Amino acid sequence: MNDADTKIEQVLTAVIGRATDRTCPPLLARAVRYAVFPGGARLRPKLCLAVAAANGDSDPALSSAGAAAIELLHCASLVHDDLPCFDNAGERRGKPSVHVAFGDQIAVLTGDALIVLAFESLGLAAGECSAPQRLPSLLSITSRAVGMPFGISAGQAWELEPSVDVSHYHQAKTGSLFVAATCAGAAAAGADVEPWTVLGERIGEAYQVADDIRDATADAETIGKPVGQDAAHGRPSAVHELGVDGAVGRLRQLVAEGVESIPDCPGGNLLKLLMLEESKRFLPKDLARRAA
Amino acid sequence: MNDADTKIEQVLTAVIGRATDRTCPPLLARAVRYAVFPGGARLRPKLCLAVAAANGDSDPALSSAGAAAIELLHCASLVHDDLPCFDNAGERRGKPSVHVAFGDQIAVLTGDALIVLAFESLGLAAGECSAPQRLPSLLSITSRAVGMPFGISAGQAWELEPSVDVSHYHQAKTGSLFVAATCAGAAAAGADVEPWTVLGERIGEAYQVADDIRDATADAETIGKPVGQDAAHGRPSAVHELGVDGAVGRLRQLVAEGVESIPDCPGGNLLKLLMLEESKRFLPKDLARRAA
Repeated sequence: MNDADTKIEQVLTAVIGRATDRTCPPLLARAVRYAVFPGGARLRPKLCLAVAAANGDSDPALSSAGAAAIELLHCASLVHDDLPCFDNAGERRGKPSVHVAFGDQIAVLTGDALIVLAFESLGLAAGECSAPQRLPSLLSITSRAVGMPFGISAGQAWELEPSVDVSHYHQAKTGSLFVAATCAGAAAAGADVEPWTVLGERIGEAYQVADDIRDATADAETIGKPVGQDAAHGRPSAVHELGVDGAVGRLRQLVAEGVESIPDCPGGNLLKLLMLEESKRFLPKDLARRAA
Repeated sequence: MNDADTKIEQVLTAVIGRATDRTCPPLLARAVRYAVFPGGARLRPKLCLAVAAANGDSDPALSSAGAAAIELLHCASLVHDDLPCFDNAGERRGKPSVHVAFGDQIAVLTGDALIVLAFESLGLAAGECSAPQRLPSLLSITSRAVGMPFGISAGQAWELEPSVDVSHYHQAKTGSLFVAATCAGAAAAGADVEPWTVLGERIGEAYQVADDIRDATADAETIGKPVGQDAAHGRPSAVHELGVDGAVGRLRQLVAEGVESIPDCPGGNLLKLLMLEESKRFLPKDLARRAA
């Protein structure tokens, strides 16, 4: 594990530990821990910390809290997405999904509690950090990414509309939390936020394309969740639109555009290298070789 | 409508209007508006504004945002509570509950989006108000009230445990948001928070007792939701424990204790009168006469 990985697990462990202590109903406490640990790739919080570092990371407590908040919101969305009334997904990250392991009621509450905890942890960190004046911006960035009209809740709700604008849908459902990751990293470090939106958008779109490719080509064991879900649910997919090779090309182009957009900052060059490296892990190894 | 009522509807209208504009998926936008308007008694935001006023209300934009956040969190909890996997309640506030009117998926998303919106509106207000340094406290107070280990999510989760501490359960499920209301009012006005917890606790417990009484004695048309739910779900109830007259006596005692706890502040006496007046409306008229 590198420094960022360690830091992310540490801050998540601290936040979840406090929330699921002995005074918490035991079943909810177990389900919340189950939903967050062990994690997936932790891409969003890594992106947040990387952007904060590139901007000097002048308030590490705040950037860590921002990264944790974003990961908790992501985990919450996965738990609710998997519910029987939505994807009815039996597996997630290679184990039974939360509602299968703990029941629908606990799964609804787990998602709710994780959303609340994300914002609570921001407030607690801001009460103890060196630059609390950055909290309103951080709060707006993270909440906007998961609410409505532009965030994850809205993205999910577009699936229920008779007609969907595909880019609108992907931007809300996946892109928004990547944009929040880059912008929260900048905001926590006291940098200008706006120049960092393009990186979040492109990396988010690249990840979505990678997800479409994995859904269409990988097996469930490799990616730890059911495959073929886009086709089964009639959801928009880059593979459906461009074919596998076209989608792989599109992914490369998006990462290049994102890297190109990185504004001048103390750690800009290092961040560019990191982005290129990290994005290689978006795909299963054999496809990554095709993309290289 | 008095000033506080008007102010609450205005700020909720503004917050919901922004979130459900034309860029929001139409079904989600309709469901969110349906979940918030027309409201119930708006007891919690009224309590928040009343405590802020009693403390001089030096930042009205912040106290209004706090009141709105608390009401949105309350509405969110009702929508998720009513879901088939929990209470499976077909009616709320005299009309079909959100999942009956819009489906389970939209109901889950409506609750999620309202939770997010509550915190988002705090962040936006703090970005524009005169005392943004009060935001961390306001954020902690409101999030603690709805999360875990002590908030509404935890309260709901206690229902799923084999053994429940009744006061723990009620404190989490109902009391926590009343405590948040008094404390948020104080925090938004820059006052000491801690002395205001007892008022919130007692008024919250009084309201819970009133709810138990209404559930056991009223008819569905009068209270706008199904009755007899506590008995049907085997939930703890003050009526079951004390009988109707005993419960009415308990309610009076709790309100008196709450009023007694109000700390010295510029508008303390007015607040005491207001609390006594408001708490009379907790019960249907015939029972209120018995309690007088």
